[in-house]
Amino acid sequence: MEEELHALLRDLDALKQLPDPASIDRMRDRVVKMMGPSGAAAATRSKIKDMSAEVVDSNPYSRLMALQRMGIVDNYERIRDYSVAIVGVGGVGSVAAEMLTRCGIGRLLLYDYDTVELANMNRLFFRPDQVGMTKTDAAVQTLSEINPDVVLESYSLNITTVKGFETFLGSLKARSSNGRSTGVDLVLSCVDNYEARMVVNQACNELRQTWMESGVSEDAVSGHIQLLVPGETACFACAPPLVVASGVDERTLKRDGVCAASLPTTMGVVAGLLVQNSLKYLLKFGQVSPYLGYNSLKDFFPTMEMRPNPQCSNPACLERQKEYMQSKPARDAAAKAKMEAEASAAIEYPVHVDNEWNISVLDDSDTATSSVQRAAADILPEGLVRELPDEDSYVEPPAAPASSGAIDDDLEELQRQLDALNSS
Amino acid sequence: MEEELHALLRDLDALKQLPDPASIDRMRDRVVKMMGPSGAAAATRSKIKDMSAEVVDSNPYSRLMALQRMGIVDNYERIRDYSVAIVGVGGVGSVAAEMLTRCGIGRLLLYDYDTVELANMNRLFFRPDQVGMTKTDAAVQTLSEINPDVVLESYSLNITTVKGFETFLGSLKARSSNGRSTGVDLVLSCVDNYEARMVVNQACNELRQTWMESGVSEDAVSGHIQLLVPGETACFACAPPLVVASGVDERTLKRDGVCAASLPTTMGVVAGLLVQNSLKYLLKFGQVSPYLGYNSLKDFFPTMEMRPNPQCSNPACLERQKEYMQSKPARDAAAKAKMEAEASAAIEYPVHVDNEWNISVLDDSDTATSSVQRAAADILPEGLVRELPDEDSYVEPPAAPASSGAIDDDLEELQRQLDALNSS
Repeated sequence: MEEELHALLRDLDALKQLPDPASIDRMRDRVVKMMGPSGAAAATRSKIKDMSAEVVDSNPYSRLMALQRMGIVDNYERIRDYSVAIVGVGGVGSVAAEMLTRCGIGRLLLYDYDTVELANMNRLFFRPDQVGMTKTDAAVQTLSEINPDVVLESYSLNITTVKGFETFLGSLKARSSNGRSTGVDLVLSCVDNYEARMVVNQACNELRQTWMESGVSEDAVSGHIQLLVPGETACFACAPPLVVASGVDERTLKRDGVCAASLPTTMGVVAGLLVQNSLKYLLKFGQVSPYLGYNSLKDFFPTMEMRPNPQCSNPACLERQKEYMQSKPARDAAAKAKMEAEASAAIEYPVHVDNEWNISVLDDSDTATSSVQRAAADILPEGLVRELPDEDSYVEPPAAPASSGAIDDDLEELQRQLDALNSS
Repeated sequence: MEEELHALLRDLDALKQLPDPASIDRMRDRVVKMMGPSGAAAATRSKIKDMSAEVVDSNPYSRLMALQRMGIVDNYERIRDYSVAIVGVGGVGSVAAEMLTRCGIGRLLLYDYDTVELANMNRLFFRPDQVGMTKTDAAVQTLSEINPDVVLESYSLNITTVKGFETFLGSLKARSSNGRSTGVDLVLSCVDNYEARMVVNQACNELRQTWMESGVSEDAVSGHIQLLVPGETACFACAPPLVVASGVDERTLKRDGVCAASLPTTMGVVAGLLVQNSLKYLLKFGQVSPYLGYNSLKDFFPTMEMRPNPQCSNPACLERQKEYMQSKPARDAAAKAKMEAEASAAIEYPVHVDNEWNISVLDDSDTATSSVQRAAADILPEGLVRELPDEDSYVEPPAAPASSGAIDDDLEELQRQLDALNSS
């Protein structure tokens, strides 16, 4: 690279003496060569019209479409129909934006008024060469290179000002720039102060907009995410905010001489939990968490649900609560119809009928695997199983002795099975 | 850099029409800026000799050194003395490497034999313009730009081959390239198959090397991290691997036509938990987790401890177990001496004597905050507290009525306090 640049300098110096068209072409070629493996076109990837599940190295969506093949998600491609707004493109918001971009979200709206500083480099996403750019510009630069299929809209503004709030509200309601959708499907709040959260709350209450709130403590060691559905769950004004107990208070950030601590780990985990919850909500799989806390010092993850406060000080919240109460008969009827439809479907068709993958996994070593899992079950906590290293070389273990309940016996039994595997 | 090259191209194109000496000088300046140490300094940042806690936008370490000021970590700067080896620079390993780099780790050793493909773009870290590069080269390119203070050593090799294993073992024992340390302080396994994990296990058992294992399920919706201390905890061969139950089996990855699913969320969360556990281990704060699972469908995080298996098939593990047993009297004596020292220190000095920050937070609204937390305590799960939006404008609430234990009463009380805040 440096040699190339030296050569360029020599050419330029020569050019000063005697302009020469051939040398200009030579320099052009050199610059293009420095821009990527085989030129500028290869530097980023071209747009992809339809998501494909084809298992080839050149397909950026193969590992995502596999979620569908495995029966985790019914229709992964629907992600392209969704629009998500991210308010605050800092330590959590920027990583959330990158995750959604890499997942192939249809449209991302980004809001921030800040610029990139070297002091942000202890969190993921921004690079030192972006220092001085607005966070929204820097994010668009990075995200559009990662996935050109995502429609990016960025707003460098402060939503807590009157004008900023108007633009914010307008953009959440507007038709997308490609005309494919109106409004957004989810708002993610990734801001670092109470005022901005209250503004997001106000906008979402007014627009009947489901949103998720996130936060990281000022001592960098805890955080949380929270789902807010206007009228159905507590809004952000229904009660003082719920945070993970870890000793330090967030609002001191803005005081003189006090600098909040932050870690790429805590912020990465919170962004991951936030976008995972968003994917579950949008693509309808798993259980969407109403509240999930993260205490990193103890690796403790408290959860809870919060109902709306009938005395909430936010008038829009009270309106949404009233609407939600009034729609109860319709909701109940819909839920009943859905349950009945599912019950009859379950009788007629086996679940995951085309899920070949799961079937091939278990094949004929099925029985042996289950017996090992049973043997280990009494010493394992809920939700954990032992995984055998290689089913293909699995050897039927000798009949297990009547369980004595002692850990050593279980381990011995597991060990015999493992030895059989290792020796085969 | 790429912008500069684009600008250069535009200038060259213009030059073809009408030679212009000023444009040549402009291009020359651009080339010089892109060159060598002084040029690199403009695009990326220069090295920093000592970590500073100064709160200025230009300090990339201010938010990390704040951990020390807040009493979370005793000596954050010690991170520069540590070397961490990351085996497998894929969806988990690359993000773990970026987190440690941004945290300012002293030295990172990276191992992988794979190249970057577009099919990796659904996970964080690698960029489309790096397709075709080895993962270790691409990682060094990105990480050295993010933080030039980190010493990076990369090994593009397969540790499961005889030659690869030799190089791996040798590099773990070697003196660092800057001569500051010998050996590594922690090995992180971020590989995607059983064989490679067994190889890491073998090397760490031989070298008495503490390591952490990580894994993500083939259906992309669960994962885990595990701490392994040779002789003290179960090694990877002591029992079949423990994974989070989520339905799909990892070993099918290598079968024909089966493509594992992956998500940037799950991998980002696992990388975050892994590096958080690493920071707690290296910098001695919080509780280091022996095992932490992540079931993303239910947001469930199982934990457990695993003792070594006295019948383990790995001879090196048995040796380490024997050593650990033999060193018990010395360990007990050391633990007793430490406890006694801490007990006498606690009498002589107040804890966190120079932690001004915590003191200023609580100041005179201390009593009011605690009373609110008490009022909310009976409806909150363990580990969660309500946070008041602004202590400065806090108004002493009317005396709380005798608690009836009903949720509505508590919410009403909280609401009164919140209203007082909002109206002030």
